[in-house]
Amino acid sequence: MPTRIILDTDPGADDALAILLMLSSPEIQLEALTTVHGNVTIDKTTRNALALLEFLNAKNIPVAQGCSLPLVKPPHQAQGEVVHGSSGMGRTNLTEPTLKPIETHAVDYLIERFLAEPKELTLFAVGPLTNVALAIRKEPKFAQAVKKLVIMGGAIRSGGNMSPLAEFNISEDPHAAHIVFNSGIPITLIPLDVTYKCLLTSADIERLNKIDSPIARFVRDVTADYMEFYLKYEGFAGCALHDPLTVAAIIAPELLTFESHYVNVDISGGVSTGKTYADFMKVTKKPANIKVALDVKGREFVELFIERMENLAKQ
Amino acid sequence: MPTRIILDTDPGADDALAILLMLSSPEIQLEALTTVHGNVTIDKTTRNALALLEFLNAKNIPVAQGCSLPLVKPPHQAQGEVVHGSSGMGRTNLTEPTLKPIETHAVDYLIERFLAEPKELTLFAVGPLTNVALAIRKEPKFAQAVKKLVIMGGAIRSGGNMSPLAEFNISEDPHAAHIVFNSGIPITLIPLDVTYKCLLTSADIERLNKIDSPIARFVRDVTADYMEFYLKYEGFAGCALHDPLTVAAIIAPELLTFESHYVNVDISGGVSTGKTYADFMKVTKKPANIKVALDVKGREFVELFIERMENLAKQ
Amino acid sequence: MPTRIILDTDPGADDALAILLMLSSPEIQLEALTTVHGNVTIDKTTRNALALLEFLNAKNIPVAQGCSLPLVKPPHQAQGEVVHGSSGMGRTNLTEPTLKPIETHAVDYLIERFLAEPKELTLFAVGPLTNVALAIRKEPKFAQAVKKLVIMGGAIRSGGNMSPLAEFNISEDPHAAHIVFNSGIPITLIPLDVTYKCLLTSADIERLNKIDSPIARFVRDVTADYMEFYLKYEGFAGCALHDPLTVAAIIAPELLTFESHYVNVDISGGVSTGKTYADFMKVTKKPANIKVALDVKGREFVELFIERMENLAKQ
Amino acid sequence: MPTRIILDTDPGADDALAILLMLSSPEIQLEALTTVHGNVTIDKTTRNALALLEFLNAKNIPVAQGCSLPLVKPPHQAQGEVVHGSSGMGRTNLTEPTLKPIETHAVDYLIERFLAEPKELTLFAVGPLTNVALAIRKEPKFAQAVKKLVIMGGAIRSGGNMSPLAEFNISEDPHAAHIVFNSGIPITLIPLDVTYKCLLTSADIERLNKIDSPIARFVRDVTADYMEFYLKYEGFAGCALHDPLTVAAIIAPELLTFESHYVNVDISGGVSTGKTYADFMKVTKKPANIKVALDVKGREFVELFIERMENLAKQ
Repeated sequence: MPTRIILDTDPGADDALAILLMLSSPEIQLEALTTVHGNVTIDKTTRNALALLEFLNAKNIPVAQGCSLPLVKPPHQAQGEVVHGSSGMGRTNLTEPTLKPIETHAVDYLIERFLAEPKELTLFAVGPLTNVALAIRKEPKFAQAVKKLVIMGGAIRSGGNMSPLAEFNISEDPHAAHIVFNSGIPITLIPLDVTYKCLLTSADIERLNKIDSPIARFVRDVTADYMEFYLKYEGFAGCALHDPLTVAAIIAPELLTFESHYVNVDISGGVSTGKTYADFMKVTKKPANIKVALDVKGREFVELFIERMENLAKQ
Repeated sequence: MPTRIILDTDPGADDALAILLMLSSPEIQLEALTTVHGNVTIDKTTRNALALLEFLNAKNIPVAQGCSLPLVKPPHQAQGEVVHGSSGMGRTNLTEPTLKPIETHAVDYLIERFLAEPKELTLFAVGPLTNVALAIRKEPKFAQAVKKLVIMGGAIRSGGNMSPLAEFNISEDPHAAHIVFNSGIPITLIPLDVTYKCLLTSADIERLNKIDSPIARFVRDVTADYMEFYLKYEGFAGCALHDPLTVAAIIAPELLTFESHYVNVDISGGVSTGKTYADFMKVTKKPANIKVALDVKGREFVELFIERMENLAKQ
Repeated sequence: MPTRIILDTDPGADDALAILLMLSSPEIQLEALTTVHGNVTIDKTTRNALALLEFLNAKNIPVAQGCSLPLVKPPHQAQGEVVHGSSGMGRTNLTEPTLKPIETHAVDYLIERFLAEPKELTLFAVGPLTNVALAIRKEPKFAQAVKKLVIMGGAIRSGGNMSPLAEFNISEDPHAAHIVFNSGIPITLIPLDVTYKCLLTSADIERLNKIDSPIARFVRDVTADYMEFYLKYEGFAGCALHDPLTVAAIIAPELLTFESHYVNVDISGGVSTGKTYADFMKVTKKPANIKVALDVKGREFVELFIERMENLAKQ
Repeated sequence: MPTRIILDTDPGADDALAILLMLSSPEIQLEALTTVHGNVTIDKTTRNALALLEFLNAKNIPVAQGCSLPLVKPPHQAQGEVVHGSSGMGRTNLTEPTLKPIETHAVDYLIERFLAEPKELTLFAVGPLTNVALAIRKEPKFAQAVKKLVIMGGAIRSGGNMSPLAEFNISEDPHAAHIVFNSGIPITLIPLDVTYKCLLTSADIERLNKIDSPIARFVRDVTADYMEFYLKYEGFAGCALHDPLTVAAIIAPELLTFESHYVNVDISGGVSTGKTYADFMKVTKKPANIKVALDVKGREFVELFIERMENLAKQ
């Protein structure tokens, strides 16, 4: 039985790759997308989600549009556009979708779906956590109904990519992350500590493009700006598979090394705002609330990713 | 034409008095109540709202139940129960309501009503601002649809009643208040600076109870714990008409002295968290966003309040 | 017996007026000046202190130079220069002093003097509190040795002049103020709440200048930039006698209305950093640590100030 | 030519080991100790420093006593006494020293010594940075006169030992650390990331005690409480050589892996207060100000440490 998943996402180049990886993975049944502001505006993330499903012939997957702004802090989408291209989809050129989002707001859709089948569905969240936080606050029963929540976010031992301490998804809505981390939902966290060890290289892109396929070209084009950004600002020729690595929690958990810790988010408003920290030395004496990936067989995951993309490209 | 009002409330002794004052005021048409956590838990505030409408023969006014917790901070309802009694209704003994809240969540109800008649309805908010903040974040068009928002909250020049700087309603959900204050909604603020000048005394209660009426007894009983609290902790024999004073913004604005300032809320997490501050000296150079009441003819308002209660009691 | 005073100061136009007022007041024996960064740089405040004593024929009063920077925060002297002129002495043109500061650092001088005569001397501090804080931290016996400390600083009910909540002296070194306020020294605080009610007007300047005297001209010239600043930015034609009003605590305490409260400073780093707050409603249950002036017979103080200046001018 | 060192210290068990290591290392000439509050009170750290020098026949090394309290935050010495024993010297029983500290305050002694020989002396600081910070603020020329400053403190990728994010020395006076880190002094930082890899074990203690010597017994006794604490609270049988590892920066730098980064301390007052962070991804674009040790050949350092102790024991 495949794991039934609802994905909260802000596509976003690596969001798109995560969706591709989910759709190419028999271990997973992707049942819906909910969109959120983040890498680009909510209009664009929703448009990208719809266009992507249409491109992938997955029109049966419903898309519910969610929140357009972080709970409290102002958004930083300008930064997202540098990494993900102004459309959020790099240099791809997907046709304007004919699909439309469903009428229901993402927050209500999440509440409905999870309350309809308590403890049956797994939630993946690979953007800012605004939708999930609002679902928790609007419907007190929501948290208990989520079987598991896999989050791409945070930088535990790693430095941050938005501030010295904070990673983008958490930093973009730290108050939402604080609500989610303290909700009691069983959480698996995939932070920068592991995602930066999963670098898709130009050689990987070339290898994939030996298959003459729209999928192969899409992977190349959607990562083009991303790779350029990394080369320019972070000094390596490759693109971190941030969001796709969450999928490993289902399809290849043996590649990840997990530890359970008390984990929380700094929302103080100071220089460390958005820092996702783990209490390694148990100084707070608080019980572990999050299973966090602290190491990964990075190259093995990248190989797995490419194989799945090759399979998808050959279909 | 009376002012059409939706009241977001957490009854609460003074909330109950505000509802009484609204229902006794021909200048106002109270169209709905939305309930929120605050003085006591959401179960109790909703129960109290329903029981009160039933007691007042106002069963046609719908009640929508809202959020049970502040956005980010933990709640402080224990403090509320000291002031408002464990039920939230002091020493009154209203019968268990037969009325039920409508199905719709308060956040959605607010969105529906205000979007259905943009710029037609006035919102009063006399509890923590969680519902209003969620409506703003869930539906970006909500803020533009609100004609005016009258808030009981904050301590501008006055000291706070929850911390040296912070007043209860704002302190209970400062992040919600920050969202609301920065939303662009035209706001009138009724802070402690004016509400503490409107003290209902034992003599007032006695005068009202010369009328033998359930209403008069209700006013006496609902304020009994409140008065005891003030006498014990704040050293004066009387009860501040916090929430009722918001109604003066419609029925007797001439009693209030307003100034327009740039006003915001401290959400830093430091000792001043929840402080509602005005930029009197214009050092931020930001435009005024809030009309704030800084003085009041307090005794005149109390007289007006008693007169209205007397009229209601005589009906 | 006159009150024996050591003055910690950052001249500064109103600092100069405070020194003039002290020297013209038989109730006070000014025994030394210690200088601190603040309105302008430490080089300038020291030079101004020396030049002023020379101008006033008070060469016997020693000057010890103190700290050049706030403890933790970066300085804002650019703002000071707008108010006090680039020299810090407005449009006056005092000759370069021949006096030199003593060898001892202000921090050590304060420690020496107060420990030599415990509980005998009163300290006035009318600039940022860096010197006083360092004396407290360097010598644990210092706090007990100070008879009384009169501080110009803070905005209790009043808005701030550096941020909506913070007054310049406290805001310039909030950490120092936090050290001082929590030191156990008996403190009298003269905040903006009272100093802004003591406005020296152009008419006052004219009246004083009917006496043809270097003193009268000095008062006119030292306040010229100050008055222009107030007119431009704060909309009134006059100059607040911030620092001189501290002297009223000795020579005319009956003009001031004091209350004793628990008072502290926000050093959270958030928007309220530098806020000096009083716990009016005793919510912290902490004992009063500061006697704070909350009202003043402003015009009476200004009259007293002018009379003393006239006496000085006639000498 | 040995490196000439002044050591600012709060002995403290591992402080004592650092002093032993310095005195047993020909590469180092220890010229003076300055004491500071920290692991235990200033009275105890000064007494311990003097008793230790007497025990080690190093009576020619002067000791200057420094600050008794952190700049702004309240102290946490109770925690220190759990780790270091109530005297701060574990279960050792050094005789009461006949030596006295010199008259000069540590802050003034640091200023005098470094200004007397600018860029000649290296400062080691293995306690809270209060003395160093006060020297910087009291004498603006101090920072330029320090050749190099080696600090034991911080937790960069490692979790903290006082809070999830903060290490003891920095956490104990974060404001002082902030002053020091931003002073321009060339700093080498030895954080928990490396010190926790240098564990002295019971087997090491036994090996050393094959030599029948007061030194060997001292090392055993001074670490006894420390080892018990680690076993009880942190789950390993050994004692981290925090302060001694700083000495490796001089006597065995090849064992340490250094990186230069922009490093700073969170003083926001929030949950991350005291966090020492490095901007690994250069998101602040600020220049590197600190050389930080991020890896160490831990066992090799422990071997070196024991060898030096054996040599000292045999003397």
